[in-house]
Amino acid sequence: MQTMNWQGDRLLILDQTKLPLNQEFIECLTYQRVIEAICRLEVRGAPAIGAAAAFALVLAAKCLQDKENFWLNLEKAKSELAASRPTAVNLCWALEKLWQSILNNKELKPEEITAILEKEAVKIYQEDIAANMRIGKYGAALLPDKGAVLTHCNAGALATCGWGTALGVIREAFRQDKVTMVYADETRPLLQGARITAWELMQDNIPVTLLTDSMAGWAMKNGLVQAIVTGADRIALNGDTANKIGTYSLAVLAEKHSIPLYIAAPVSTIDFAIPDGSHIPIEQRAACEVSCFSSKQTAPEGVVVYNPAFDVTPHELIAAIITEHGVLRKPYIQSIANLKNQLKTQEEN
Amino acid sequence: MQTMNWQGDRLLILDQTKLPLNQEFIECLTYQRVIEAICRLEVRGAPAIGAAAAFALVLAAKCLQDKENFWLNLEKAKSELAASRPTAVNLCWALEKLWQSILNNKELKPEEITAILEKEAVKIYQEDIAANMRIGKYGAALLPDKGAVLTHCNAGALATCGWGTALGVIREAFRQDKVTMVYADETRPLLQGARITAWELMQDNIPVTLLTDSMAGWAMKNGLVQAIVTGADRIALNGDTANKIGTYSLAVLAEKHSIPLYIAAPVSTIDFAIPDGSHIPIEQRAACEVSCFSSKQTAPEGVVVYNPAFDVTPHELIAAIITEHGVLRKPYIQSIANLKNQLKTQEEN
Repeated sequence: MQTMNWQGDRLLILDQTKLPLNQEFIECLTYQRVIEAICRLEVRGAPAIGAAAAFALVLAAKCLQDKENFWLNLEKAKSELAASRPTAVNLCWALEKLWQSILNNKELKPEEITAILEKEAVKIYQEDIAANMRIGKYGAALLPDKGAVLTHCNAGALATCGWGTALGVIREAFRQDKVTMVYADETRPLLQGARITAWELMQDNIPVTLLTDSMAGWAMKNGLVQAIVTGADRIALNGDTANKIGTYSLAVLAEKHSIPLYIAAPVSTIDFAIPDGSHIPIEQRAACEVSCFSSKQTAPEGVVVYNPAFDVTPHELIAAIITEHGVLRKPYIQSIANLKNQLKTQEEN
Repeated sequence: MQTMNWQGDRLLILDQTKLPLNQEFIECLTYQRVIEAICRLEVRGAPAIGAAAAFALVLAAKCLQDKENFWLNLEKAKSELAASRPTAVNLCWALEKLWQSILNNKELKPEEITAILEKEAVKIYQEDIAANMRIGKYGAALLPDKGAVLTHCNAGALATCGWGTALGVIREAFRQDKVTMVYADETRPLLQGARITAWELMQDNIPVTLLTDSMAGWAMKNGLVQAIVTGADRIALNGDTANKIGTYSLAVLAEKHSIPLYIAAPVSTIDFAIPDGSHIPIEQRAACEVSCFSSKQTAPEGVVVYNPAFDVTPHELIAAIITEHGVLRKPYIQSIANLKNQLKTQEEN
């Protein structure tokens, strides 16, 4: 189960739009092809698109023939990559991290710059997997001793560089014999739950039951669900969290049934620049994602469609945010500020 | 927009599984073919399957060659029809209504019995349309002067004999210039909202926006929705209401956002024999409705699926129940009891 594979001169990306029936890799030789893959959701999941964008910037540097305008063109590639999807902040975070690593090395030759970028991108990739393993450990401790967990969309190995955030928690909890069943919301419109989460879990022999998004509330009402764990695409300073559309509804339903909803995400998902969720741009995607299915039209020709790809769950509905640096608790405004200071101190040391 | 068409010796049923791309009628010459149509959801919607079952019983009577065992076989047909789908009570209500009309006429010839049944079935059909018109008038009065209405599944002309329950309310309110937009939940797994509700409304030039079920909560949070109106498949004496899966989640979200959720349904939807929603049987349907799409597999082979076709919304989450005899208000245990007495008095006079 490999989301992407860096080969030094190209990035292989598992085409997630073809799952679970076909497992095909896309060979990206240019950063433009990676942008295409991000826009088409061939690669998706906030941490995964961060890493893919990082490798794409390396590809851009490698491909730059015009050594005269190397910096100008590299910055252009960075801007284009940053604009490929608006909601997940990990994308910009990864690009900024690469940029910071070269910013004070303008005297170096393009080859040397490229080498620094590549080293940094590989580091992001490797650190993401390590972060997921830690998130898994912290998160598993929060789950009840025995119970069923519901998840939405795919925050698994394939949404990250490996192991997964929400599914990392579930994998670790299952290893500890705590998980009796995973309920996977199919996650309309693009069915990442049905196509990817169910597939990932079945590959690992973790018991999974697929349901439509509209059934989750009824499952809660009937006592089938003891906890909810999802990933995140952007977290504001007060804990407000953008994630796949439908997460907000789950959070309201979880509150009604006194079921804890946990967000599992690496620190790179926190946008330290925004005070609350109202500042998170919500991507609106094409009507055909809702009105068609697998290019087959299902709704009437020309129907108007509302298709936000994400929603924002207010902090008060989130029981805890699980990061690789530990579990954040309410009030998030405080715990996230503390985390920020902690990270700053680490950086300075 | 005709759900079914009785032709004296056959029932034409609009094949709703083919909508909106194809408008084809199925010719039912036997009651068994009507059962098939009900099971396959070629005809669906509680009032519509009630009427279809009524015509099917007429077909059964007409086809009975064996005059010896006429009553025995007619009762067998009635039982099979009653068992075709478990949740909507209108099915049994219609069959019982027909049965009551002939029960004390056992001395009559089969031809005469058949004539009584046919007259009664046609009456059910006609009265359903008239009831919907009255529901529309009562319901439109409840909606705000200007606002957007959200609906789930299809409780339209095609869920009834014509006009519709929830869509009857919306049609009448639109005629009164009260409705600025209708949000139609696509309604997974079988997309009755995308395929039928959106189509019905577009045919009538009523502005409609299609969204996935998971987006309804976010639309409410963003102030896009001022009221919710849905149909019902069975209402208990205390007002607990079974309707298409996802209605319960909508009701919880509506409560969270102080948006009224109205149920629009004819009195035939009330099951006067059950005290509350826990007594309503919930149909579980085949896994492939969720794991496949238009016979194309989308989820992994062999995945376990949870597929309840309905859920039960507790009475406290329902702002009002709109019937052809007026608007029922809380406490429903009282208003439904009053209605029962009123109907009994009418019957006796």
